[in-house]
Formats: sequence, C-alpha cells, structure tokens
Amino acid sequence: MAKLFFYYSAMNAGKTTHLLQSSHNYRERGMQTLILSSSLDDRFGQGVVKSRIGIESPSIIFNQKENIFDLVKEHDHVNCILVDEAQFLNKAQVYQLTEIVDKLNIPVLAYGLRTDFQGELFEGSQYLLAWADELRELKTICHTGKKATMVVRIDDAGKAIKSGAQIQIGGNERYVSVSRAEYKRIFHDEGSIKPSQISLPLEDI
Amino acid sequence: MAKLFFYYSAMNAGKTTHLLQSSHNYRERGMQTLILSSSLDDRFGQGVVKSRIGIESPSIIFNQKENIFDLVKEHDHVNCILVDEAQFLNKAQVYQLTEIVDKLNIPVLAYGLRTDFQGELFEGSQYLLAWADELRELKTICHTGKKATMVVRIDDAGKAIKSGAQIQIGGNERYVSVSRAEYKRIFHDEGSIKPSQISLPLEDI
Amino acid sequence: MAKLFFYYSAMNAGKTTHLLQSSHNYRERGMQTLILSSSLDDRFGQGVVKSRIGIESPSIIFNQKENIFDLVKEHDHVNCILVDEAQFLNKAQVYQLTEIVDKLNIPVLAYGLRTDFQGELFEGSQYLLAWADELRELKTICHTGKKATMVVRIDDAGKAIKSGAQIQIGGNERYVSVSRAEYKRIFHDEGSIKPSQISLPLEDI
Amino acid sequence: MAKLFFYYSAMNAGKTTHLLQSSHNYRERGMQTLILSSSLDDRFGQGVVKSRIGIESPSIIFNQKENIFDLVKEHDHVNCILVDEAQFLNKAQVYQLTEIVDKLNIPVLAYGLRTDFQGELFEGSQYLLAWADELRELKTICHTGKKATMVVRIDDAGKAIKSGAQIQIGGNERYVSVSRAEYKRIFHDEGSIKPSQISLPLEDI
Repeated sequence: MAKLFFYYSAMNAGKTTHLLQSSHNYRERGMQTLILSSSLDDRFGQGVVKSRIGIESPSIIFNQKENIFDLVKEHDHVNCILVDEAQFLNKAQVYQLTEIVDKLNIPVLAYGLRTDFQGELFEGSQYLLAWADELRELKTICHTGKKATMVVRIDDAGKAIKSGAQIQIGGNERYVSVSRAEYKRIFHDEGSIKPSQISLPLEDI
Repeated sequence: MAKLFFYYSAMNAGKTTHLLQSSHNYRERGMQTLILSSSLDDRFGQGVVKSRIGIESPSIIFNQKENIFDLVKEHDHVNCILVDEAQFLNKAQVYQLTEIVDKLNIPVLAYGLRTDFQGELFEGSQYLLAWADELRELKTICHTGKKATMVVRIDDAGKAIKSGAQIQIGGNERYVSVSRAEYKRIFHDEGSIKPSQISLPLEDI
Repeated sequence: MAKLFFYYSAMNAGKTTHLLQSSHNYRERGMQTLILSSSLDDRFGQGVVKSRIGIESPSIIFNQKENIFDLVKEHDHVNCILVDEAQFLNKAQVYQLTEIVDKLNIPVLAYGLRTDFQGELFEGSQYLLAWADELRELKTICHTGKKATMVVRIDDAGKAIKSGAQIQIGGNERYVSVSRAEYKRIFHDEGSIKPSQISLPLEDI
Repeated sequence: MAKLFFYYSAMNAGKTTHLLQSSHNYRERGMQTLILSSSLDDRFGQGVVKSRIGIESPSIIFNQKENIFDLVKEHDHVNCILVDEAQFLNKAQVYQLTEIVDKLNIPVLAYGLRTDFQGELFEGSQYLLAWADELRELKTICHTGKKATMVVRIDDAGKAIKSGAQIQIGGNERYVSVSRAEYKRIFHDEGSIKPSQISLPLEDI
C-alpha cells in the first residue's frame, strides 16, 4: 500500500542527498524511479537534481501548468516517484500526487521547505502538510546550535528583508537557516547576522 | 530547552487522553501544568477537558481574543502548557505559544485536527504545522482498515456535505475519520458511508 | 499489511493508557481486540490491565510456557493484539508475535520497558528491539527535567541497589524512572535520590 | 543538551550517506566533526568512510581495545561525533559514547545494523538500543517490496547459511537485506533467493 511522504526542512538539511539516496536504493534493487523537479518559470523537460555534497541525477522538470498524474501515467513500471523543490507545487499538483498514491499505488517522496522568508507556508508545503500520509523532518542546525526550522532572507548588511515576493530570482539576497528564536531576533527585533554565518544564494534552495 | 509540540490527528485518535496522560506524568512528579482549551464562542473561564475513554481534568477556557502568552505569565511555576482543540487557535495565538517556548522556556503540547471537512487546514493547524518544533501524529484507523487522516462531514444519508462553515455548531451533521482514499470516495465520487460506521456529533471533536 | 510495533519506555510513561486507548479506538469502530498480559509466575487466565490514570480493561494473562500464536489462533475475527508488560516475554514468544503478524496478518502492539535496574535489556525487549517493524518511544520525564530513559532500583535510603534478580517480587525496593545521566549519578557515583521523588512499587511496573 | 542517536537499519539503507551528509551540515556552518569507524581487526589510524553513492570522507579507525571517550577528549572543539559500523562496538565502547554525551556534552550519531545473519543483535547494537537517547530507523526495501529489516547470509545457490561466525571476512558468502517474512522463508523454510536479487560482499556492510 503506497504512501505520500513529505520530507520537510529548512534549507541545507540534505533534502536532495536524501532524495538521491532513496532513488539509488530502489534502482540498486532493479526497480525504476522518476525524479521530478518543480520549476519556477516556464521551463520543462530534462534537468539535473544536484546535491551540495556532490552527487546528481537526471530529472524531469515540470512547471506549474503540468498535470503530474498524467505525466507519471505516461511511464510504465515506475516503482517510486521523488519530487524535489516540492514547496513550489500548487494545490492541484499536490492533489495529483495523492492520486498517484491512491489510484496508481506508487509511493511518492516529496522534499521541500516548510516556510518562506516571512514564516508563511509555501502553497506546496501547505497541502503536503495537510494531505501527506507521513510527515518526516530532515534536521539541520542553526549557527546558535539549536535545530534550524526557519529560513530568513537577508541583505548585504545581514539584516532581515521583511517584504517582497515569496520567490525572488536574482538579486543580492541571501537565505539562512535558523532556529525560530534566532529568526525572531533577526526578523522582529532588528538583529543582524554576520556574513561569516552560512549564507546561500537562491539557486541552492 | 523547551519545545512546541503539535500532536495532530483525525478525530477520535485519543488526543485528549494523550493530553491528560502527559499532564498526569508531570503532576505525578510534583510539577505543575496548565490545561487550556480553545472555545468557539465568547466563553472563557473554568472548563473541563474530557476524554471519550472516561477521564477528565479541569481546564482554562479561552476565546479567540485572549492573549495566551499573557494568560500563562499570570501563573507562577508552570512546568508545561497543554492546549486542547488547538485547531481553533488563530495565527496570533499560535505565535504566542512560540513566545511561551522561546521567551519563558516552558514546553507547550498542542493537540488538534489537521484538516476540516473540506480537506483544508484549520488556521491553528496551519501555523502549528508551520512553526512547531516537533510534529507528532496520533494515529487512528478508518473503517477500511487504513490509517484515518481526514475528516468527512456527512448528512443523515451518509453522503458528504461539501459546503458550509468550517465550524458548524448544532445541526444533524456527523463527522467521520477516514483514510484519504475513502475521503475521496465519499467527497468527490458521490459515495456514502453507512450509519453503522462510527460517527460522532460535533461536541466530540 | 500488519506490523509488529514495540512501544518502549521507562516506567510510568503511560504505556497502559496508550494500550487501552488504542484498543478503545479499534472497538469503537466495531473491531475486536485481544489484550494480553505477561505474568511472572504460573498464573494464567482472566486478568485486568489497569492504568494509573484510572481506566482498565479485562485481559488474558499468560505465562512463560504459553504459545501466544496458538492462543491467538483460538480466537476468531481478531483485528489487533495488544501486549502489556512485554519485557517479560521470552525469545520464543516474541517470535510467536512476529508469526501473528507475518502469517495471520494481525497487527501486534507490544508495550514494555527497555532496560532493567542494571541497565540491561529484558529478554522480551531485546527481541522486540531486534525484530519489531516499528520502534516507538513513549516519553516520560526525570525529576531533573530531562527525558527519563532508565529505571533505577533503590533502597529505603534512596541508594541504588546494584545486584539481585532482574525481577524482584515483594521486598522494600522501589523503582524510579530517571535520565541516563541521573542513573549514572545514582548507580555508579554512589549518589542517592530523595524519597520525595516519585517512586513506585513493583506492581506499578 | 547533547544526545546519543542510534541510526539503525538493514544493509544498504544509506547509513554512510546519512553520516557524511550530517557531518557536511556541521562543517558547512564552521563546526568541527570527528568521523570514527570501528575495525574488526587490529587496524587503527587513518581511514576513509565511503558511501556506495560515491562520496567519502577521511575517518579515524579504532579497534575493540580503544577507549573512545579518551580518543575524543584528545581533540579540541569538536561539535559532533559520527560513528560508522557501530554494530561492531563492544559494550564498554557504547558506554564511552554515553559518557561523551553526558560528560562532554557532545552529540553522538552512531550508525549500524540491528541484527546479524541469524537474527541476533550485534553487541554494539544491543547496547545502543538499550542506552541511546533516540532510536531512528533508516529505511530500505526488500525485493518483495516490503521494508527490509533483516539481513540474510547466503551461499552461491542462494540458500541461507545458518551457522558460522557473526562476522565472517572473506569467503563467498553474500548478504541480502530482506523483510522479516522473506527472512523466514529463506532461513527457516529452506527457500532460496536468486542471484539477480541484490547481494553485496561483506565490505559493503
């Protein structure tokens, strides 16, 4: 009986490594997997999922207009679906993932961020948190030593950027995974974070 | 280091029993707990949290205007906060729970439903899923034998009620905890569920 | 597809409440459960499983000679087996539980302690930790505020008893659930624990 | 407050990838980690931890005579200890890991197998299951599609080897991760498994 798993975390928790390892475990046993990755723009087609630790795999890029259920049905003998950047899915696409599980009986592993730089759920995360069979946290650490569960968007001075589009491409913003207490210190209490703290450009999300 | 826990489930998974047992474990060791329960109307004051299995404890009822952080600060030497019906919290109140953890260093255990009868997150659940340190599922079973993760609202004929207020008081509606596949069968595919299946009036939520 | 769950904890974590609530959830939906409880002596027959919080249910008491697989096969239409005091099972009986799952396809929920007063696994716990499909911790707290994961056996002066039978019936010994650090302080570093700390006689295990 | 984690699984679940990713997460934030690997023979010194997926890191090899607590104390400013092949630890060494957590307040992540080819716990696994603060399963799949939780040792004909040393170096034996039901079919019911099923030499454990 297949299930929909949502592996959630802040940035840089190893989501893509976990995705690639899970896919590898299936393939090593002679089974087939499909790796899907959500795109923010109109791109679709062949892509690559890369982990910061240095491993990668080809993937299928889809955009917000794609029906993922139909996309999966075109492939025969798939044993597992893995979705990268699942926070960017829209509501209909998360529903399609549940249909892959409930109608096609294929397990789906979706990986994504919980909240955006303002502490709000992404649309994809919202419906995965609502409908997934299993919620699993991938843990990462804040520079304060606590578990990092939030993502803060900062400017060059290390101060929180408090408004703007949920998804910002280009620009000088950086994202940092922090604990909720540290998030409040930077976002609400006008604190800042030093550039020496880990900070990653958008493409690493 | 205190944490905010969100224990989520469908209806009738034993949330209140778990809450009362956790409170009991603290008190048995000489520590103090506060049991809070969200009210849908203007009520506030002294209440009672009751479990279907037959145990109960006094509680503090608060309504949507209450500042829970201030409410907790009025009490000295509290070792743990337990919140029943946490799906009915509003966004500000969930933020106040994070402040109890981050500023007062008191652990908070919040218990609530994930989704309403239309499969949408409650406001309290949405922000608990976004901000809690730990998400923990309390499991219950569907009459089909699968895990029940959704709640369907049905009429006297066992057919899904598809529209209406998120929270409906009075009336003849019943709520049933079902698996996602069974939810789809009833809600989307015009199926019905027999009255002999477990069904509970609103006050049991 | 049924599974064998091992719910482990220190003493007084609410194992029996969890067991009774799980059984209640099944029965409320019209399904049947069998509650089994291991006995240390030659007793068998009808018993009662009681939770400290004040709820109870009839149970079947079995002893170390019983074949649990055969015992369960005698009952028709059982939807779930729940085993209290599972640390007292022997290796053969844990194997029989796996057979109930693998051959009869009935889920088994076994509840027990992890370690004895010397920090060694009980025989039942050892094989449940080895063979269970899912290991789930039920948490309780030490008087130091940390999670309690060990059980220390103390005398009237609050000093650790370091030798003796794994299971001691009668006598003046008391058991206390403590964190591992506190266990070391009492057991290895000749510390003691005040009588005002929670302490429970053997029959409460 | 540091903790001792035991990440357990059957073979080929991605334990080493998880270990290397966790270490990477710490180092990326400017913190230091020590990667330790247990050796079966008298070797000690500098080694390498390699994941099948193609990533690696230098490690410190220690043997059964080593005191791991003393080994760790020699290093300054270590933020996390990661232990590969933790099933090969002896009882004293697992105790030393608890001391690293309880006395030095450094988190320890230990990765290892639960059971050997006869379904018995390894010594290291036994005491990690007894004393770890958190037990976390890394999942992998059996060729039957179920979760693989056991490891079977097979000969060239795909039949189970039922006796012999717990740890066998060299020889033609192969190990396969299987579900408990499949383990029973091969080990107890004289079944066999085809060479086309995944099988890995000892060095891949």
